[in-house]
Amino acid sequence: MRRAILDKNDRLAERNRGYFRARGLLVLNFLSSPGSGKTTFIREAVKTLQPEFKTGVIVGDLATDNDAQRLRESGAPVVQITTGTVCHLEAEMVGRAVKQLDLNGLDLLVIENVGNLVCPASYDLGEDLRIVLLSVTEGEDKPLKYPPMFQSADVVIISKIDLAQACNYDRETALANIRRVAPKARVLETSAKTGQGMDAWREFVAQQHQERKARDPLCP
Amino acid sequence: MRRAILDKNDRLAERNRGYFRARGLLVLNFLSSPGSGKTTFIREAVKTLQPEFKTGVIVGDLATDNDAQRLRESGAPVVQITTGTVCHLEAEMVGRAVKQLDLNGLDLLVIENVGNLVCPASYDLGEDLRIVLLSVTEGEDKPLKYPPMFQSADVVIISKIDLAQACNYDRETALANIRRVAPKARVLETSAKTGQGMDAWREFVAQQHQERKARDPLCP
Repeated sequence: MRRAILDKNDRLAERNRGYFRARGLLVLNFLSSPGSGKTTFIREAVKTLQPEFKTGVIVGDLATDNDAQRLRESGAPVVQITTGTVCHLEAEMVGRAVKQLDLNGLDLLVIENVGNLVCPASYDLGEDLRIVLLSVTEGEDKPLKYPPMFQSADVVIISKIDLAQACNYDRETALANIRRVAPKARVLETSAKTGQGMDAWREFVAQQHQERKARDPLCP
Repeated sequence: MRRAILDKNDRLAERNRGYFRARGLLVLNFLSSPGSGKTTFIREAVKTLQPEFKTGVIVGDLATDNDAQRLRESGAPVVQITTGTVCHLEAEMVGRAVKQLDLNGLDLLVIENVGNLVCPASYDLGEDLRIVLLSVTEGEDKPLKYPPMFQSADVVIISKIDLAQACNYDRETALANIRRVAPKARVLETSAKTGQGMDAWREFVAQQHQERKARDPLCP
């Protein structure tokens, strides 16, 4: 049963992927625990990328449109998916939500998944990159304790780095644990509050967008 | 399908409940996001309760026995459940794990669920009390964004209160949001690091244990 659901999701994710590629979009799927700072990071990240990179946002939550409202402060168009009791986004939900966005002129599509470090790992949405946030407040062992999520990460963003000292954050251990589970993942250390690491973030996205255009020269 | 799984879980949870009652155990199910401080809180909470209240611990994780090792520092016997890819504990897993504990002389059974603010809410384990942790680092809106979990809470423990200032934690908003979703839940503000609130915690458990004995006078 679970297998069949995942198989169906994988097919719809590939359809999304094809659709996104034809539209020349670089698509980022953001995942983390509740409270790791996804919404704040995305809001600041989108501000940093504008106006060069025009971004649309899809955000999933069980309830409330708090995040959608906060994300609109970035100036980007935002579509909310309310999942009710469903603990993750699925490709089908994203396929429906994207129809509510005007994709003309968009360079980037950012998807903020439901806050959950387990279930969303199993659901491909058709993204180009999976970006997993780990805040310094959560403890350095999370990559080891939630391996499916971290194994699937293309990028790990260490967030709230401004709180490192207050939390006795052990940087070496955290980085070693990430490398153990996700040896190929790019790691960025950031604070959306102080702006630390946001230049590196911008550079990273610009490079990915460049590579996407080079790989698929038909895209605008 | 999901309904059938939950129905089966509910029956096995009631069996656990009957079993726990016959053994005179007060059973606490701890739930939260990854990184809210469940393990540290439980370790310190168990230390605070000993030797008056003898406690056994069952801990669930996708991978690693890091938490079980840390919990053993409290002096309590600990049984680990490794769930692999399963995002929550189920009554059946707890029923099996409890057989590995020597229940003679135990007053309390503490269950640390998998770190996940969504899925474990649907799975009764046969506990007396659901205790949901919310750390001050996670943001005050989490009760509104994850209503099923907070609606099911008998107790909400606000953890890492020592980090309140560093995180610009808005106490009034957090408490108002908890009251809105879980008006009957008891709220305790704690720091396992500084010991703040641990006396109130001890008093709360002592009172619950007393009430349990009064309700069920056959229990030892």
